[in-house]
Amino acid sequence: MITYNAWKICIITEKVIQDAVLKALESAGARGYTFYEGGGKGEHHRHDNQRASMLPSFGIVKIEAIVRERSTAEAITDTITQQYFKEYSGIIYLQGAEIMRPEKF
Amino acid sequence: MITYNAWKICIITEKVIQDAVLKALESAGARGYTFYEGGGKGEHHRHDNQRASMLPSFGIVKIEAIVRERSTAEAITDTITQQYFKEYSGIIYLQGAEIMRPEKF
Amino acid sequence: MITYNAWKICIITEKVIQDAVLKALESAGARGYTFYEGGGKGEHHRHDNQRASMLPSFGIVKIEAIVRERSTAEAITDTITQQYFKEYSGIIYLQGAEIMRPEKF
Repeated sequence: MITYNAWKICIITEKVIQDAVLKALESAGARGYTFYEGGGKGEHHRHDNQRASMLPSFGIVKIEAIVRERSTAEAITDTITQQYFKEYSGIIYLQGAEIMRPEKF
Repeated sequence: MITYNAWKICIITEKVIQDAVLKALESAGARGYTFYEGGGKGEHHRHDNQRASMLPSFGIVKIEAIVRERSTAEAITDTITQQYFKEYSGIIYLQGAEIMRPEKF
Repeated sequence: MITYNAWKICIITEKVIQDAVLKALESAGARGYTFYEGGGKGEHHRHDNQRASMLPSFGIVKIEAIVRERSTAEAITDTITQQYFKEYSGIIYLQGAEIMRPEKF
């Protein structure tokens, strides 16, 4: 099996800015993404996923994307950190991943 | 702490084929798995997780499994790509992971 | 872009012990975490996420945390394995990750 090296970007942030972050992600070069709702606790306060179902704006979302190039992963990370993470809570981390069918990324 | 190297397989696909993919995953050697519902956008069209809650077949699902051997990870990847990803949208990626209690995998 | 190496801890366990595991995670050194509900199948029995929505105690949860130091990741892994995984089903795995803004972890 032939695999190709790629970068997985994981963004965890407030649900209220989900759509804006997804647009920024695409503009900065991601050709696809997925997102998952959850709960969590970060530096500021605890987000509860049951409260989130009543007040969707207060929930958290994990957004994931895979890109081929390190430079794309870094452009996405820089853009989102600078545009959103001064005002809103959030973290981003990068991990290597092996993909098949590189034309899809 | 003693850890053991293993492979994490991540499959993101259409919810409508979840059960079939889970069976293929087990047949190809995974001894356990987890799955999470979400939304996303890929090469074809945007899946919305709110629309998904009304029309479950149109949602996306992330399926994860950990296996000890690279050969098992590759067999699973090949099987699912060939059986499902000509007709349905989906991606698979592999990542290394460290586990404890290797007898569970 | 400057990145910092960190460790991602992923704990998959029964939803009934979620709050206890989150407390143990913080006590052992994690400064934040996220959690996601899902379904799965492990060594004992299949957890169905639709049944889980009726009987929350029987669902599964994936808990994730990022820590800077390997020693913190190992302390968390040891604590949770010893305190909970004799009685309850669960796995933990570790993966490397690159973070920005290390003061948040």
